[in-house]
Amino acid sequence: MKIITEPNELRNWSREQRKNGQSIGIVPTMGALHEGHSSLLEASVENNDATILTIFVNPAQFAPHEDFDTYPRTFEGDCKIAAVVGVDVVYAPNTKNMYPRNYASYVEVERLQDGLCGGTRPHFFKGVATVVAKLFNAADADRAYFGLKDGQQIAIIKRMVRDLDFGVEIVALPTVREQDGLAMSSRNKYLTDEERKRSLCISQALFRSIAQMKNGCVDSDAIIETVRANLYQVDRIDYVSIVDADEMTPVDTIERPVMLAIAVFVGETRLIDNIRFEPTATQTSAPDTLIAQEA
Amino acid sequence: MKIITEPNELRNWSREQRKNGQSIGIVPTMGALHEGHSSLLEASVENNDATILTIFVNPAQFAPHEDFDTYPRTFEGDCKIAAVVGVDVVYAPNTKNMYPRNYASYVEVERLQDGLCGGTRPHFFKGVATVVAKLFNAADADRAYFGLKDGQQIAIIKRMVRDLDFGVEIVALPTVREQDGLAMSSRNKYLTDEERKRSLCISQALFRSIAQMKNGCVDSDAIIETVRANLYQVDRIDYVSIVDADEMTPVDTIERPVMLAIAVFVGETRLIDNIRFEPTATQTSAPDTLIAQEA
Repeated sequence: MKIITEPNELRNWSREQRKNGQSIGIVPTMGALHEGHSSLLEASVENNDATILTIFVNPAQFAPHEDFDTYPRTFEGDCKIAAVVGVDVVYAPNTKNMYPRNYASYVEVERLQDGLCGGTRPHFFKGVATVVAKLFNAADADRAYFGLKDGQQIAIIKRMVRDLDFGVEIVALPTVREQDGLAMSSRNKYLTDEERKRSLCISQALFRSIAQMKNGCVDSDAIIETVRANLYQVDRIDYVSIVDADEMTPVDTIERPVMLAIAVFVGETRLIDNIRFEPTATQTSAPDTLIAQEA
Repeated sequence: MKIITEPNELRNWSREQRKNGQSIGIVPTMGALHEGHSSLLEASVENNDATILTIFVNPAQFAPHEDFDTYPRTFEGDCKIAAVVGVDVVYAPNTKNMYPRNYASYVEVERLQDGLCGGTRPHFFKGVATVVAKLFNAADADRAYFGLKDGQQIAIIKRMVRDLDFGVEIVALPTVREQDGLAMSSRNKYLTDEERKRSLCISQALFRSIAQMKNGCVDSDAIIETVRANLYQVDRIDYVSIVDADEMTPVDTIERPVMLAIAVFVGETRLIDNIRFEPTATQTSAPDTLIAQEA
């Protein structure tokens, strides 16, 4: 397994693979790998001739008051996991290589970046889109793997790839959860035992809301109200939103694919989770009935 | 010579070339080719195995009141020129392929995009950087050719390529001029005979300023004043600026490489021109002398 730290070195490696007709998968991460990341790496190794794992804690997506300095860095352990899964290259650039002197260029995905995490973390998705564009340019991969836990990120990267004519297929894989339902996250390490227990209500609130939607409830406000009530064990709710699954814009009536997204603080730790829901034909008839009644 | 209109088709063609070990040059244009463009195409054909000419009048870089609708479109003539020079692919996407429904993604090169043409044409370079990023992604070229006439554009694209880790070398070629000195431009077609004559003062003002700088004048304000006086035949001066050749920020004292840039209106037609100047060791000693005198 090769460790690469320079964008040009990665590009030269990728071009060599391509010349030999090898397909390339890339898994962009900030390191501190957990089973969610492993599932992405395994999928990439299975479906591509070569796999790049990128490890870069990206300063451009952290605000000054956020956890850039304390974000868990476990490079050696990450490399061991990567080697076991069968990764070919670990791309771990340093900040100076990624943001050289007089750095000026940014990618933004307008509208999609504004709500949810973008609402409470301004510039977050500007940092994400920019660094992912850089990774895509240097790696020239066929496929890139992301977890659906970062639901807004997936929507933004998919749109960026389509809009800017990147030649990479975005593969979105299901959120991997602990046995009790908590979504895996590198930030779970911040939680005390007591906070860890209280965090359980996040996934439970999501699962209950899915049951509510499956039972035919199409009213976003009603569902959001139930979710908020079920989040009574967290310390602060950042947002609970139901948005169009592609456009990331709030939805009043659930009649097309939506994402129900949650961000909360448990102690000092900010945790996010989400679930996607696509109404069936029977369920989508409900809003028409509602409209008919209102008219 | 192949005509391609879809980003994916261009990418597939480029990947095929790369697999065969062929190098690719790209010459992005808005069509209405003149000898300036030809010089770029010739350089690309000479230095690469395959050359892509792109022709796309990019709506994202025109403001509503500007000349998007009337911009000269001479596709058949352009293709004839391309065929003679030895171009392999003309990439002529339509607007729907370039900016599909719900388009949201833009590239910006902060600071460098703010002054000069960016000052009087806001969003212009956002449109330019975005479309060039799209062309680079779809073409995956080794080298891209631009004319130095669009001096700020070159600086912005070079910075974008460095910052976003594009794997393309930017080749900047000298401005091609009419025999009397007027910089070649597709917009010269707009000029009446009388306006064409008056436009001559633009290049003459530039040439005289170079003489002034070579004679040791390092004071930007003094040079700008002379240039403005020499532009007496134009109808309106948009700007006359001396900026750092890389950062595009105004320079008071000429002690490093600079660009002297002009934008004017002759009749309704907006014309730009510029010239680069690098002070020699003798000349750079001048500002020190000045500072010493002031102290």
